[in-house]
Amino acid sequence: MIKVSEALAIVAENSSNMPVQRIPVRKALGYILAETLYSPIDMPPFRQSAMDGYAFIHSEKHQYDVISTSQAGDHSNIKLNENEAVRIFTGAFVPKNADTVVMQEHVLANKDSILIAAMPPQFSNIRNKGEQIAKEEVVFEANTLITPAAIGFLACLGITEITVYKKPKVAILVTGNELVKPGKKLPKGKIYESNSVMLEAALQTIGINKTKVYKVKDNLKATKKALKGILEKYDVVLISGGISVGDYDFVKDALLANGVEELFYKINQKPGKPMFFGSKKDTLVFALPGNPASSLTNFYIYVYPAIKNRMGFSDIHLPKLVRKLNDPITNTTGKTLFLKALYDETNVTILDGQASSMLNTFAIANSLLIVPDDVEGLKKGQLVTLLPIN
Amino acid sequence: MIKVSEALAIVAENSSNMPVQRIPVRKALGYILAETLYSPIDMPPFRQSAMDGYAFIHSEKHQYDVISTSQAGDHSNIKLNENEAVRIFTGAFVPKNADTVVMQEHVLANKDSILIAAMPPQFSNIRNKGEQIAKEEVVFEANTLITPAAIGFLACLGITEITVYKKPKVAILVTGNELVKPGKKLPKGKIYESNSVMLEAALQTIGINKTKVYKVKDNLKATKKALKGILEKYDVVLISGGISVGDYDFVKDALLANGVEELFYKINQKPGKPMFFGSKKDTLVFALPGNPASSLTNFYIYVYPAIKNRMGFSDIHLPKLVRKLNDPITNTTGKTLFLKALYDETNVTILDGQASSMLNTFAIANSLLIVPDDVEGLKKGQLVTLLPIN
Repeated sequence: MIKVSEALAIVAENSSNMPVQRIPVRKALGYILAETLYSPIDMPPFRQSAMDGYAFIHSEKHQYDVISTSQAGDHSNIKLNENEAVRIFTGAFVPKNADTVVMQEHVLANKDSILIAAMPPQFSNIRNKGEQIAKEEVVFEANTLITPAAIGFLACLGITEITVYKKPKVAILVTGNELVKPGKKLPKGKIYESNSVMLEAALQTIGINKTKVYKVKDNLKATKKALKGILEKYDVVLISGGISVGDYDFVKDALLANGVEELFYKINQKPGKPMFFGSKKDTLVFALPGNPASSLTNFYIYVYPAIKNRMGFSDIHLPKLVRKLNDPITNTTGKTLFLKALYDETNVTILDGQASSMLNTFAIANSLLIVPDDVEGLKKGQLVTLLPIN
Repeated sequence: MIKVSEALAIVAENSSNMPVQRIPVRKALGYILAETLYSPIDMPPFRQSAMDGYAFIHSEKHQYDVISTSQAGDHSNIKLNENEAVRIFTGAFVPKNADTVVMQEHVLANKDSILIAAMPPQFSNIRNKGEQIAKEEVVFEANTLITPAAIGFLACLGITEITVYKKPKVAILVTGNELVKPGKKLPKGKIYESNSVMLEAALQTIGINKTKVYKVKDNLKATKKALKGILEKYDVVLISGGISVGDYDFVKDALLANGVEELFYKINQKPGKPMFFGSKKDTLVFALPGNPASSLTNFYIYVYPAIKNRMGFSDIHLPKLVRKLNDPITNTTGKTLFLKALYDETNVTILDGQASSMLNTFAIANSLLIVPDDVEGLKKGQLVTLLPIN
């Protein structure tokens, strides 16, 4: 049995980056860039007006003849004389020798001429060519997260494809003779199988949208056979159940028989102790406890950072928050506790119903509160660390 | 021109809940429940062992004959005598008159009998029928957010379909003769169109995955015609560009001509002042500024809560954080500022490059810092409010 901190370190060390792939920018939200990108163009590509107004050559004069119009998208080779101006709109091309734009609100306009009421300083209201980024300058360094703004910026530079780390292909293998598919009649002694849809949904929260679910009977032969094919095809394999010490828990044997290397088995924590983590080549295997709340806890604590790491993220763990504890906690277990909790802007409350079989508490919780294994108690009012979920 | 707080109130008032629909639980992540749900079964559905061990009738005796096995999924009508025990596994059916389970670690086991080394209290290690939830009890109240844990809990009760608020159908209409599709050659005076992919990605972050993008020429007739069809088909319409005071900004006229009621136009803020918000029947229309950074700012401040509200969320705005300011800010504009900023666990730094045409700053920011219109300056070290993004 290892400590939580050791288990986290082993997961981080063994979850290597996925291979890279080229994808369209418009489908790149949430991916991590795997190349340094350079701008193919100057942005703006030409001198642009920053206002609706008039472009002219700055001088002492206040009156100008309006000789032409430059709308956004227009381009002309017009050259102004010093008493001439061009009607211009935001984003439009500024004629070659004009050096200033006056906003229309500061102008008295006649049919063909203007009188500038409030003269702007020279060079006002013009966005210079390459002001935002020059051609060949770095757009983003490798390992940048692709956000909506990043997608917009890439598109405005005309970039349509980028190299990113692939998302891992994930399979879920469900074990357990007691499990019945929701929607069917429930025979005596059986329960509905809920971990696969729960884990599928949890994977969706980190951008893994296509997960294949396999089911297998609780026996060594069937489990071994099912795992053989799955281990070849997927980058991350989640197994639900069959990993505690019961006589009918074949999963660990089936994994070892398939050449999966054990990296750890059992963690000094509650809930979620009976978990196996291993690897075969680049495929990671998490055999999660069958109890739903334990399974989801370990998803957030171990599977989440492993997948983030494989996708190339630098911050791989759930973010941490600090809040003031509303009620005292005792921890006589010598284990790290992950408690379902509800936090607000300043405080955090531990919820009733922490048993590992209970999901209802998890459904109304918005965080997991961490009580370290070497902490025997936390007082009311003490500051504690928690991991926001949902 | 109205204040930000007024604009926010008008958006919230006018963004009514979407109609409801029945959807499969496994596709319900991120939806809001539109009904109160009652449990169709007791959970657990029968008395379950919480441990791998032995079930027996609690007594003074330490030695028991093991007469049978109850694996998870089994069910038998066995009745124990007082010197008998059943080998049992986690989640398995506890025989009718057994009242206690001893964990296997506390037992010396022979072939057909056990000696209990550490006697547990009566009723130990048994999960009672209906302990987590009883049949007909409330599972979730209406307006609950469907999280991974909620999906798991619904599945474990055998619930396969629920009633939720629909997600709005969203269209993006892009205006601007200056715009060229990324990937094509850029003629002089033109720029690449980037707002539609940026807004599509921003919509994805709140679960709106299918957005239809329309493009239209900068003239009143074409804009009117395009809007007619779009207003009939969509629940939320985002229009990019064409809404400032330039002579070529036809959008507002086209909206009014199509019977869209103006709810506000122009907000006392920077960036993002020239925005139109209106509605026609239940369809909401946001005409966003064409400048990319203004457009994305107003997406987060106004479109985001409108869509969350339509989806039935109670907390409709981006969450707020408080951080210590690293540098002083002056605000002589009399407007509310939304500044691209980078926060860490304690502090926040304002980024360079706040111009509304610049997206590169937005791409590296993780928050928008709010400077209220009536605040003329903020000192270094002062606590400020920010909205985390990305």
